[in-house]
Amino acid sequence: MRQQQDAFGRALLDTHLHRGGCAVIERDDGYVDSDRSLETYFAGYAKWARPEQQAVQRAKGRVLDIGAGAGRHSLYLQNKGLRVTAIDVSPAAVELCRLRGIKDARVKALAQLNAKDGKFDTVLMLGNNFGLFGSFNGARRLLKKLASCTSADAQLLAEILDPYKTTDPSHLAYHKRNRRRGRMGGQLRIRVRYKQYVTPWFDYLFVSEPELRRIVAGTGWEIGDLFRGDGPTYFARLVKTKRQGGLRTLVKR
Amino acid sequence: MRQQQDAFGRALLDTHLHRGGCAVIERDDGYVDSDRSLETYFAGYAKWARPEQQAVQRAKGRVLDIGAGAGRHSLYLQNKGLRVTAIDVSPAAVELCRLRGIKDARVKALAQLNAKDGKFDTVLMLGNNFGLFGSFNGARRLLKKLASCTSADAQLLAEILDPYKTTDPSHLAYHKRNRRRGRMGGQLRIRVRYKQYVTPWFDYLFVSEPELRRIVAGTGWEIGDLFRGDGPTYFARLVKTKRQGGLRTLVKR
Repeated sequence: MRQQQDAFGRALLDTHLHRGGCAVIERDDGYVDSDRSLETYFAGYAKWARPEQQAVQRAKGRVLDIGAGAGRHSLYLQNKGLRVTAIDVSPAAVELCRLRGIKDARVKALAQLNAKDGKFDTVLMLGNNFGLFGSFNGARRLLKKLASCTSADAQLLAEILDPYKTTDPSHLAYHKRNRRRGRMGGQLRIRVRYKQYVTPWFDYLFVSEPELRRIVAGTGWEIGDLFRGDGPTYFARLVKTKRQGGLRTLVKR
Repeated sequence: MRQQQDAFGRALLDTHLHRGGCAVIERDDGYVDSDRSLETYFAGYAKWARPEQQAVQRAKGRVLDIGAGAGRHSLYLQNKGLRVTAIDVSPAAVELCRLRGIKDARVKALAQLNAKDGKFDTVLMLGNNFGLFGSFNGARRLLKKLASCTSADAQLLAEILDPYKTTDPSHLAYHKRNRRRGRMGGQLRIRVRYKQYVTPWFDYLFVSEPELRRIVAGTGWEIGDLFRGDGPTYFARLVKTKRQGGLRTLVKR
């Protein structure tokens, strides 16, 4: 990611440096949203929503934090003594993670992850970061990849926004438009803008629980627990699928 | 202004109705800024900056509030017993002014003002609303118009942003770009975006004190007082120019 494209990381870094900063999310139908509270990306455990706390409490073993942002989850778990690797495509976000004390922060996209990065026991995709999967096929491909670089009893803790829990006519119209074009209803095409910085357009995925089940099936993962709060976001704990037709079945034949 | 274009007024109205809302200012070079504190448009007198309080204290007689927005200045002066006419191009802003108790609020642009709207003693262009003049020539034309629909001892109270009091490289580059194209350095071409709403592109004018003097000369107005604060904005009180070569000069010949 070139510096000029590093809009979100730059906004986070400026917030950390008290230079203000509000990031703008622009959707490809012209809808804009402005994240007025970047401070929440820095919030300590006590200020997290209850299901977010519950999800993070499940973390164990070696942790991979995908799209770490300002690193609030990594920092919490590192301080608890866990070994954490934080990755983010944004160089400014990774710089910020290091400034805040995260020992292992890397500029890396999920798609660039490989065996050399290690074998993980817990994968974090919090702060709606399930969205980074981008699309139905992208989610399935990347879930399979994550299955291969995690231990047998690994778990994936994801925060997911259910896009259909809204009555906003412009969101509902956007879902329809998406379906007409063969996309998932909650498959947003967006870019982030901040001052003179602007990211390339990218897909960000919001899915309902039934959609999540269809995505996960056959990827090596299955739904373990779901943690729901008051709002449209929910937390899913995915666990590795136990192999069917494994050794024991074979012996019994 | 069509409803779809009423981005800023809609953001103010949503703020009033506690539906959140952050307006985004987009400049034609791609720079974006997000007004994270629309609440300031609703702030009471005690929360205004000292020079803003000083400027408003000078108001007297019949008042015209140009670009009234959420109407904080109109409301304060109306409550003091002055007769106030608030105008704004935004139907949502005018709706909001009326909701907040302003008796005379009209959907009207400064350029649409005519003799039937009345004869005013005080014209307010606060909250950086000097910017609504748009350009050097626009400012001179509209100042002459305002001279004709105000009383002989009228005053114009304007808040102005000095664009050159910045070290931000992207702002400095924008000033240069403007001058190359024959525009004033601080002549911004912007639009306001909020959710699905977007205004047309328009010019918004920031000027230094020397530039203000050149604009005002020969328009029927002259600079009375200047009130400066800590930041890049300043307040100007313009007063009507006393006629040169009037009756007395004629008699003396």
